[in-house]
Amino acid sequence: MSVERHTAETPAGERELPLVLLLRPLFPRFHVALTHKFRFLKPWESQLPPDEFLAAHAGAVRALLCSGPTPVDAELLASLPRLELVVASSAGVNHIDVAACRRRGIAITNAGNAFTDDVADFAVALLIDVLRKISASDRAINALPDICNSYGVGHVANLDKLGGKRVGIIGLGSIGSAVARRLGAFGCTILYHSKRKKPSVSYKFFSNVTDLAAESDVLITTCALTDETHHIIDKEVMLALGKDGIIINVGRGALVDEKELVRCLMEGEIGGAGLDVFKNEPVVPQELFHMDNVVLTHHQAVFTPESFDGLLEVVMGNLEAFFSNKPLLTPISE
Amino acid sequence: MSVERHTAETPAGERELPLVLLLRPLFPRFHVALTHKFRFLKPWESQLPPDEFLAAHAGAVRALLCSGPTPVDAELLASLPRLELVVASSAGVNHIDVAACRRRGIAITNAGNAFTDDVADFAVALLIDVLRKISASDRAINALPDICNSYGVGHVANLDKLGGKRVGIIGLGSIGSAVARRLGAFGCTILYHSKRKKPSVSYKFFSNVTDLAAESDVLITTCALTDETHHIIDKEVMLALGKDGIIINVGRGALVDEKELVRCLMEGEIGGAGLDVFKNEPVVPQELFHMDNVVLTHHQAVFTPESFDGLLEVVMGNLEAFFSNKPLLTPISE
Repeated sequence: MSVERHTAETPAGERELPLVLLLRPLFPRFHVALTHKFRFLKPWESQLPPDEFLAAHAGAVRALLCSGPTPVDAELLASLPRLELVVASSAGVNHIDVAACRRRGIAITNAGNAFTDDVADFAVALLIDVLRKISASDRAINALPDICNSYGVGHVANLDKLGGKRVGIIGLGSIGSAVARRLGAFGCTILYHSKRKKPSVSYKFFSNVTDLAAESDVLITTCALTDETHHIIDKEVMLALGKDGIIINVGRGALVDEKELVRCLMEGEIGGAGLDVFKNEPVVPQELFHMDNVVLTHHQAVFTPESFDGLLEVVMGNLEAFFSNKPLLTPISE
Repeated sequence: MSVERHTAETPAGERELPLVLLLRPLFPRFHVALTHKFRFLKPWESQLPPDEFLAAHAGAVRALLCSGPTPVDAELLASLPRLELVVASSAGVNHIDVAACRRRGIAITNAGNAFTDDVADFAVALLIDVLRKISASDRAINALPDICNSYGVGHVANLDKLGGKRVGIIGLGSIGSAVARRLGAFGCTILYHSKRKKPSVSYKFFSNVTDLAAESDVLITTCALTDETHHIIDKEVMLALGKDGIIINVGRGALVDEKELVRCLMEGEIGGAGLDVFKNEPVVPQELFHMDNVVLTHHQAVFTPESFDGLLEVVMGNLEAFFSNKPLLTPISE
């Protein structure tokens, strides 16, 4: 059991550090910053099978730090009878069985606003990229150095202006609001759908996403992925958006019916898409390759050092608050 | 001389239309809109050599409509002794011998603000693209479908946040001001260099571009290309900007010492570049291909239908004003 001693216990003098279960290694900078404040249980370093490892430590685990999209499902939760807190490192918590946590009274915290500005910046850039064929042009220049058509003539017919566009934001939370503020400076008109009308904003509200799509030139998804928002952009919404309409997804892949999205793009039933997230990441549908009106990135909207510094603060703050019986910084509501 | 009759004269009933010399075909939509208001001289349709064609019509040509970057040099101007107006279809007029026009009292008009918003939008998108590796990621996904690394991990180390960046704008005219307004909404700090300090803005002014670069994280060129601004970003400026600094050029290729730019990018002496314009368009330096920190587009910042509608209004308005002895809409000043 020397391995268990190594991973589950700590050197003399650090016995009093609060115990936190991990499911996979932390980002190195997080490990450096947190390792002197908490004692981490690391199942992957154990020679025991994961279920036996968890069984051996379940009685002591009150907090779980879930870095990345590793699922926290009902089975895992059932193996941790004393669990009181799940700290997620993401803004969305669709990989966590929120209902099971709620039934057990287990609190969940997310990244709060750590990623807000970076995701909003990314959404705006994806939109201009699709409208103005920036990535398509860059791709063409890099692929075909001898066919540098002068003054972009080949692309002229399909370039499109941002100013004046009616942008429908799906989910006017912190990220959606940050997108709206930015696009206001470009002369766009903001419309939105969310669970409830927000009395504090003057943007036009739509309770129905199809109605929003019918009045929008662009749809941007910034809402959480839940049972209610799964495929919130479906075939009907895409057809309402129409053949010049653009979809920007910086939320989660399953917010959009990806199969229909691919079909609508291939058949020209919508005008273009900028996609940072996909249904089966890291798999990107190959039908979308080499389309001038599609920009594809790898779930990277949040990956800046500044975002991660902000996330580290939130993660550390939530764990410290929990172990000192203070209010959590970013508990998820609803 | 039937060809001359066809190209230089007009059907009965349209003889009174004012005469305008072209150097190359107009965009089709411009031709449709203008052809009933003006009588166009089209040297390329003549069987005469260009110089003989011009000699045959020089006595009647008071206005020249210069669409695209075709040079209007001293030799051409000398062949048109009665010329009073050059209407340019671009914002920059570096392809026109401005000094020779000034000596002759020939007025020049440009695109005015027709392109302002589109160029500003494009500059912002290029900057976010470089910072967040959007085009590089899109290029990698399209090129290597089987190497879709999950969650952008391969790029994480080099992604960079827009908020808080100090952006040095070179040339705070209409385009530079529009860039500044947009970047304000992203939380950037704006600095600028221009010929003179602008009393109407609170951004910090630098009379010296090297000093501006030393205090900036990003340089964006939005000034006109003149003798004074040729290579305004030279080796000294790039070294002052430093190894994390980014250059965005949406002005003219020769604003930047392209040879030094390529060297600085290859040797890591600056951090990245977003380039819509080049020294010898349409040639793009091949050394810049396949660099994750470089985004390349084809002088396409202005190509939207809305920009061209605006340009058409400006071109038509200037010609109509000239032939009815009214003030020109967009005469270039010093």
